[in-house]
Amino acid sequence: MSRLSDIGEDALIARLISKAPCDPAPGGGPGDDCAVIEYPDDRGRLELLKTDALVCNVHYTLESPPKQVGWKAVARVVSDFAAMGGRPERFLVTLALPPETEVAWAEALYDGIGEALRVFDARLAGGETSRVPKGSSAVISIAATGSVSREALVLRSTGKPGDVLMVTGRLGGSIAHKHLHFTPRIKESDWLVSNFKPTAMMDISDGLAKDLPRLAEASACGFELDFEALPRGEGCGVDQALTDGEDYELLFAMAPERVAELQAAWAKRFPDLELTVIGRLVEEGKGITLSGGWDHFAGLPDA
Amino acid sequence: MSRLSDIGEDALIARLISKAPCDPAPGGGPGDDCAVIEYPDDRGRLELLKTDALVCNVHYTLESPPKQVGWKAVARVVSDFAAMGGRPERFLVTLALPPETEVAWAEALYDGIGEALRVFDARLAGGETSRVPKGSSAVISIAATGSVSREALVLRSTGKPGDVLMVTGRLGGSIAHKHLHFTPRIKESDWLVSNFKPTAMMDISDGLAKDLPRLAEASACGFELDFEALPRGEGCGVDQALTDGEDYELLFAMAPERVAELQAAWAKRFPDLELTVIGRLVEEGKGITLSGGWDHFAGLPDA
Repeated sequence: MSRLSDIGEDALIARLISKAPCDPAPGGGPGDDCAVIEYPDDRGRLELLKTDALVCNVHYTLESPPKQVGWKAVARVVSDFAAMGGRPERFLVTLALPPETEVAWAEALYDGIGEALRVFDARLAGGETSRVPKGSSAVISIAATGSVSREALVLRSTGKPGDVLMVTGRLGGSIAHKHLHFTPRIKESDWLVSNFKPTAMMDISDGLAKDLPRLAEASACGFELDFEALPRGEGCGVDQALTDGEDYELLFAMAPERVAELQAAWAKRFPDLELTVIGRLVEEGKGITLSGGWDHFAGLPDA
Repeated sequence: MSRLSDIGEDALIARLISKAPCDPAPGGGPGDDCAVIEYPDDRGRLELLKTDALVCNVHYTLESPPKQVGWKAVARVVSDFAAMGGRPERFLVTLALPPETEVAWAEALYDGIGEALRVFDARLAGGETSRVPKGSSAVISIAATGSVSREALVLRSTGKPGDVLMVTGRLGGSIAHKHLHFTPRIKESDWLVSNFKPTAMMDISDGLAKDLPRLAEASACGFELDFEALPRGEGCGVDQALTDGEDYELLFAMAPERVAELQAAWAKRFPDLELTVIGRLVEEGKGITLSGGWDHFAGLPDA
């Protein structure tokens, strides 16, 4: 009998979504960082939808400062809106908590949620609380709506062979340094889609080794990677830069003729954040393959 | 040190939402069955948002047929859209599952999710999967968007002293008879708001003893209840009708001069579903008080 720990997350998702009616959206329904809804609102913007979850002893521990856990829960979702060229607007927060949870912990969690909502100009629209049995892990599930103009929308699936692959910031070492403190690249994404619109984009949440193949596959491309060029977090080797995950940096594909101009403009606009060419998209079936990165179910030590 | 099991769910929520920026929406932000978003879309409808969760060994067990668990997860949320006079449109499904979960269980769960989405004319827009540590309870978190015309929108907070309180169906006995099989009253709600618009409405999910005081308080009213008149599920006493919860029936307030005409029209339109007068709203501070009903955190045997 097959268990979740025997198959990967992507295989599980593919099996599940085949069972439900989905939208023929521009994003093709499930599969991109956010779902894109084709009904424009009265501002002419398309709606974006995203859901995400943090689990105690998977994404944080009881020793993690709860205010930072709340920040992270919201910031991860903001990062997905950045990945589409959009912005988040309204959040729904579902807390499934064991009854022994201290009220002060839940309040500090919400302090962090509130702070992130204010910083990213979003609002709490509603939520739900439920208990889990005593001793079970808490689950913090966040859903959000947002919007994007049709001109700014960037999908994963629209890269082309020859496009240059670039990443913001540095990769690897997130658990040691920043996984509870990162700043999603919403400001950078907003500038990019207005000035140097990528041909495809996503955020790196499960590690480049997991996420780059997803972007390339969605775009029906292969890829080449300059391992030496990978911008590595403090004290990190190439392996960590590829597989640690939780980087929350932008990975995007850019038409090659625009790269030099982008790099010059970027250095002026964001002098404190690196922007690095790491490889390029090539024709499907060519290039290299990568494995590793974060998988929620496959090959876990406790599985 | 105060723990969640020491305070009620409503007290917890009140403490938490004060910490985050909220909408000054017609529904007043968090607090109604769905959040109401004031941006009309290009169809002139308002957006509704809802999130909800099912937890293993709280809302279902490993012995529950997973297809019915999936049905229930979606149908609970559909019931909240019915409570606003609206309809659900797009769903986001977040699964937090232990790694020992059988793939067949997850697939059967999604069979039920897909069936409910088809029956209620909604779509899967996206989702997320995560593991919980081995042995932890699974959490199924559902978020949904939907819409309502401005004319059809019914809130909890707009009942008036003198309005007659009515419920659909029968109350109590849900765990024994229908909690995995119920049909949310979306068809009935749609007919009601078009023909006999209630002054206030909600669905009964935590039991009348918990939910009626919420509607009355939101409307700044007291209430009187005719205990003898309560429509009781098979084999249920008044106490069960008040406190079992998971009824997923509509509770609404109706202008008294319309009640007789409504009852006659209802009997023709929905001959198989009872509609019962159970009491009335009165001025704030008058009437009776009720306690009991389902609370996610307070007074639990395992807390």
